[in-house]
Amino acid sequence: MGEIRIIPLAGIPELRPEDDLAAHLGDAIERAGGLEHGDVLVVAQKAVSKAEGRVEQTDDVLAVILREARAVRRRRGDLIIAETKQGFVCASAGVDRSNTPGEGWVVLLPCDPDASAAAIRAALEERFGVAPAVIVSDSFGRPWRDGTTDVAIGVAGMKPLLDLRGTNDARGYRLSGTVIAVADELAGAAELAMGKAEGIPAVLIRGYRVPEGEGSARELVIPPERDLFP
Amino acid sequence: MGEIRIIPLAGIPELRPEDDLAAHLGDAIERAGGLEHGDVLVVAQKAVSKAEGRVEQTDDVLAVILREARAVRRRRGDLIIAETKQGFVCASAGVDRSNTPGEGWVVLLPCDPDASAAAIRAALEERFGVAPAVIVSDSFGRPWRDGTTDVAIGVAGMKPLLDLRGTNDARGYRLSGTVIAVADELAGAAELAMGKAEGIPAVLIRGYRVPEGEGSARELVIPPERDLFP
Repeated sequence: MGEIRIIPLAGIPELRPEDDLAAHLGDAIERAGGLEHGDVLVVAQKAVSKAEGRVEQTDDVLAVILREARAVRRRRGDLIIAETKQGFVCASAGVDRSNTPGEGWVVLLPCDPDASAAAIRAALEERFGVAPAVIVSDSFGRPWRDGTTDVAIGVAGMKPLLDLRGTNDARGYRLSGTVIAVADELAGAAELAMGKAEGIPAVLIRGYRVPEGEGSARELVIPPERDLFP
Repeated sequence: MGEIRIIPLAGIPELRPEDDLAAHLGDAIERAGGLEHGDVLVVAQKAVSKAEGRVEQTDDVLAVILREARAVRRRRGDLIIAETKQGFVCASAGVDRSNTPGEGWVVLLPCDPDASAAAIRAALEERFGVAPAVIVSDSFGRPWRDGTTDVAIGVAGMKPLLDLRGTNDARGYRLSGTVIAVADELAGAAELAMGKAEGIPAVLIRGYRVPEGEGSARELVIPPERDLFP
């Protein structure tokens, strides 16, 4: 494994409904020198949601949160941990009041983030002749650990989990229970180059070999029968 | 924010108790071209634990797990989610049977991973005249999300959380609740260049500006009064 590079894609304007996000991403990739085989493109959920029109003006954010939620898992004061309709468990069912189009607006999760990632991937393949793996990322809090980390809520052109079960460690011991959420690690790595306040909604990660296959971010969700924190 | 590089440090031998880990890290850094101001060094917990002699031979792993635990949070069959004596919540109280010194051995968490990180930082500063931020990383599972991601269990020379509360987003909206666990994102990014089976126990991350200050990985642990998943 060689060096991995995290390349911020600058100059992408604030997105609005019906903007062609893939075209803006393609322009930014061109400015960064183009796409290489094996590149992973990580795009912030907020840019995807805005381009898809998943924004709304409301004076009742709580009602929007409860509408976007399939189930509320925990609630304490203003903090609502909910399972979203897309199947993810996160604060406020993914409804966000920062970096919105304006005062009184909220941004919602894309309806189908895997499909969003696949559409971006297809458009970039058409333009560059090379198809990057694509991750749609969002900032999630975690039980027990403070602060958010970016994780993958949509993927295309890769498997989100690296499954090492059945392989051997450096000493030859069989790794029995090792599955690594590499799509989440890639999303977190990308966040380091995005910054919350700096208007960098996408980065390229170069030099990392993703697990091959067609995957879904839903594979990152623990199924109910193994969920110890319902 | 420019490009971030994740540079694997190759050629570090399998560590044994009383090995000089900082010297091996320094040699590997020299082979990679030396240390630069602002570099972050991420070292896998397993290497730290082995060099500190936190390994033992046992035929009763469960007893070791319960000894290393301060409290058991959840248990289902073989899976024990425990709060460790260091304050972290993770599977098996951090007791690990893969990549050990041999059959029947387990590797335990360092007694004080912040102190481990600080000692490595001090030794490298003496050698290179530049002090890197240092993170000791480990692979933790997460509620709701499948697979592990690497997180920080020890830090030195940086704050593990980037606190943006009170700053403004790109549109000028005040970010009210944004605290980013950048030490965890750095640890996860480093894992991508380590690989579980490839014997790369450390990486340099170059080009990322860490939150300044002297921090502790314990800041990454949600305090009991805010813990929704006791």
